[in-house]
Amino acid sequence: MKISLNRISEPYQFEARNESGNTVSIDAGASIGGGGNGARPMELLIMGLGGCSGIDIVTILNKQKQKIDSFQIEIDAERETGKPANLFQEIHIRFILEGSIEKDKLEHAISLSMDKYCSVAKTLEKTAKITHSYVLNGEK
Amino acid sequence: MKISLNRISEPYQFEARNESGNTVSIDAGASIGGGGNGARPMELLIMGLGGCSGIDIVTILNKQKQKIDSFQIEIDAERETGKPANLFQEIHIRFILEGSIEKDKLEHAISLSMDKYCSVAKTLEKTAKITHSYVLNGEK
Repeated sequence: MKISLNRISEPYQFEARNESGNTVSIDAGASIGGGGNGARPMELLIMGLGGCSGIDIVTILNKQKQKIDSFQIEIDAERETGKPANLFQEIHIRFILEGSIEKDKLEHAISLSMDKYCSVAKTLEKTAKITHSYVLNGEK
Repeated sequence: MKISLNRISEPYQFEARNESGNTVSIDAGASIGGGGNGARPMELLIMGLGGCSGIDIVTILNKQKQKIDSFQIEIDAERETGKPANLFQEIHIRFILEGSIEKDKLEHAISLSMDKYCSVAKTLEKTAKITHSYVLNGEK
């Protein structure tokens, strides 16, 4: 995998690009003088976690002929404070789906992703405790 | 930190959003049936690594009154193969700068970021060996 970044605006805005030409705008937060014109670097890790598990869950449910009408993911992540590098400590990911989906199939898909298939989860779990929950057709 | 994702297109395209409203498009690769309309989840981790270290290095060089005319970052990342979750194994990050920048100040800034301050590097180094190099005004 090759990724390139280019600083496109002072002080901190970078544009990142993958090999297919997809771009992501990255910026620092206002607290250190960033313009807020992009995602912050540590946010990208959490976005990656959501995307990774979302893709897994869609893949598994599709194979099981479950029909997904809508799929949202909400993630809360807590970082350490006061250290030179403040790593993630606790991450909670909530999957919110609507559709003709059997509850036990969804639970199994979520477990397979978080415990086995999701490369981002398996990376971030080295430093953070990751928990998960779901809401299916409005019911927890 | 709160991040939300919404599936915006079948099968795999998600839009991720941070609390400030910045959005990132995420999609699966063509190999599993994705449309390629966004960054892949594991790519976001590498983009985060670039952004994190880029912001650190700009911050440190600015404090030292070094003048950065251009700043690019190129990253090569190798993942495991054939496992349920293929984690990063080796990551090389190359910083390419032009400007009125003293070589020793740049080297020190890179070391401080990679060894101490960059939260993304300190996270990814749990699973991957991260190495770095630089090109300053065309010279390695």
